[in-house]
Amino acid sequence: MSNPQNPLNKPTLTTHQLHPENKETPISFIDHDLISSRLFYKRNHFSYPTLTYSNYWLPINGMVTTPKVFSLEEIAKFPSITTKVVMECAGNKRSLFKPLTFGEQWGKGAISQSVWTGVPLKTLLQATGVHPDAKEVLVEGYDKGKRTDMTSEYPFARSLPIDKALHPDTLIAYECNHEPIPFQHGFPLRLIVPNWYGMASVKWIKQISLIDSTFKGPYQSVDYMYYPHKQNEEDAFPVTTMNVNSTIQKPLDMDVLRTGTHLIKGIAWTGNGTIEKVEISVDHGQSWMEAAPQLNTDKNGWVQWSFQWTVTQPGEFTILSKATDTAGRTQPSTPFWNQKGYGYHAIDQISVKIEE
Amino acid sequence: MSNPQNPLNKPTLTTHQLHPENKETPISFIDHDLISSRLFYKRNHFSYPTLTYSNYWLPINGMVTTPKVFSLEEIAKFPSITTKVVMECAGNKRSLFKPLTFGEQWGKGAISQSVWTGVPLKTLLQATGVHPDAKEVLVEGYDKGKRTDMTSEYPFARSLPIDKALHPDTLIAYECNHEPIPFQHGFPLRLIVPNWYGMASVKWIKQISLIDSTFKGPYQSVDYMYYPHKQNEEDAFPVTTMNVNSTIQKPLDMDVLRTGTHLIKGIAWTGNGTIEKVEISVDHGQSWMEAAPQLNTDKNGWVQWSFQWTVTQPGEFTILSKATDTAGRTQPSTPFWNQKGYGYHAIDQISVKIEE
Repeated sequence: MSNPQNPLNKPTLTTHQLHPENKETPISFIDHDLISSRLFYKRNHFSYPTLTYSNYWLPINGMVTTPKVFSLEEIAKFPSITTKVVMECAGNKRSLFKPLTFGEQWGKGAISQSVWTGVPLKTLLQATGVHPDAKEVLVEGYDKGKRTDMTSEYPFARSLPIDKALHPDTLIAYECNHEPIPFQHGFPLRLIVPNWYGMASVKWIKQISLIDSTFKGPYQSVDYMYYPHKQNEEDAFPVTTMNVNSTIQKPLDMDVLRTGTHLIKGIAWTGNGTIEKVEISVDHGQSWMEAAPQLNTDKNGWVQWSFQWTVTQPGEFTILSKATDTAGRTQPSTPFWNQKGYGYHAIDQISVKIEE
Repeated sequence: MSNPQNPLNKPTLTTHQLHPENKETPISFIDHDLISSRLFYKRNHFSYPTLTYSNYWLPINGMVTTPKVFSLEEIAKFPSITTKVVMECAGNKRSLFKPLTFGEQWGKGAISQSVWTGVPLKTLLQATGVHPDAKEVLVEGYDKGKRTDMTSEYPFARSLPIDKALHPDTLIAYECNHEPIPFQHGFPLRLIVPNWYGMASVKWIKQISLIDSTFKGPYQSVDYMYYPHKQNEEDAFPVTTMNVNSTIQKPLDMDVLRTGTHLIKGIAWTGNGTIEKVEISVDHGQSWMEAAPQLNTDKNGWVQWSFQWTVTQPGEFTILSKATDTAGRTQPSTPFWNQKGYGYHAIDQISVKIEE
């Protein structure tokens, strides 16, 4: 027997919790533009639900002209669209907040990207008709369970304002990366809401109801709210659109390198328009250099960027990355701290030591 | 098709680096006393080496009476011993140092435990005879490569003082958990040095040489040295015996729980004697309560401990664990900071929020 190299040496998800399953994408080790379901981050509020696919139906009811119950076959017959979507958990980078906030201590990998195929929710709502008084579209998943702060059982349910529900890219998806959605990611049908944080993209859809009020479920009015003050809940507002953000994938944080030329690479994304530029600083933000975008992605995807950095002096360096989007938003130097640790998007930062 | 629960929901190694492969055990999710090779942490300095097992031989030479070259068959014929060993990377918990130190940012999982079987190195040295002037036993692995701080290529090589080499538990191991050692963990032969940090347990042994001097290879005189001062290398001393240490596995750090009774559990280990007690504090160290050991392990293993904690008041709590060994050493409240971030063993700490 000679020289087996190591077939097992692949990156793996980082485990944060097993029940419910919460695991993070090893984002520093992602080279591809699309993340396979093996490495797509998993964020669950509850145990996996029990579904019977053999008689799965999607009811759309409430403030509609004609309530309907769609079969999977009917949904597959509508014209579909396919779009590349960056999906980011609202708690991505939570572990970087100081002081720390309670909840899953996500690093930088509660983010992934894949291609979703489905029928626009708008198409289905055109089939049912929308009552003029309908204000929100409530989407309930099959996943449910107890919360630490309440006694009764709740399903995971979220609403969208009617205009976001009617956005042509808001999908009732049935394929992920051109295959049926993996069970852990919402099979058979998942709501996909591009540009919003991932909590909006309800998995295992049980039913869709149009309502004339503002939905107040706990995953909308308790969780997924920004509480900016430490001691009270004043000035709270809901988590919706993804902030402009970037993550350095290489070099690794606290790595030791030699003098010479090194590739700095990473990703940038936003829920507001698209990424306009990514800048790098190696002098604590005194000066900034523009990184080159490596790939033009479609409007709902992330941008890969890179920068060749030549360093001739040994020493310790901090590398910063700062993205700006076409809406004119840019990453702040100070994180926007909030009680539940959502939406971290301060300038990304790693440190390296250069030797020789 | 109905209700597939999730066969893929297992904990996985956390990826720190792919080349060389450095991955961490998901220690919070370990329930077993022995860690399978799938979840055993991987710490490599170089790419995996190229070996030809079909003609593998182990030379023992230098300051010996009769230099010998052992075949695997000859080694297997010596009386073997089997011992449960906790193996901890010297960099375990490095990411907890403040300020951070350069190097792999290990969390709390650069530690694992398994059962090793092999022939005591002492037995082989009795077969070769030891020259009275021999001071150290130098063990070289097949793994080699370049370092950032030097130009030539080095093998991974480490020496042991003669008395540690002759310790009856210092093994030339050929089995791990009663199977041949997995290639990534040192097949066919690995030095196992119980009670020392993991760097001493050289993988893929190429040769063993007895020397009458002090070995000065870079993995002994540059790395794996404690440099206690930030700006100079004075007072440096080598990393050898594991410090007394403990890790809380449950609850998870920054978890949100309800009032009631919760299991606090974890592991404790030491390189000095065995663990005498583990204490828990939920009042920032003002008072300590003794945890119950769950399992009596053998002398080279870790101790599993647990504590039933009843909490009736909502609020934020910090849980501390502090181990004391039979050598009278105990975990300090302040980490012993050193330039390369070795041997972190301050009192372990997690925070939880209690609701209702």
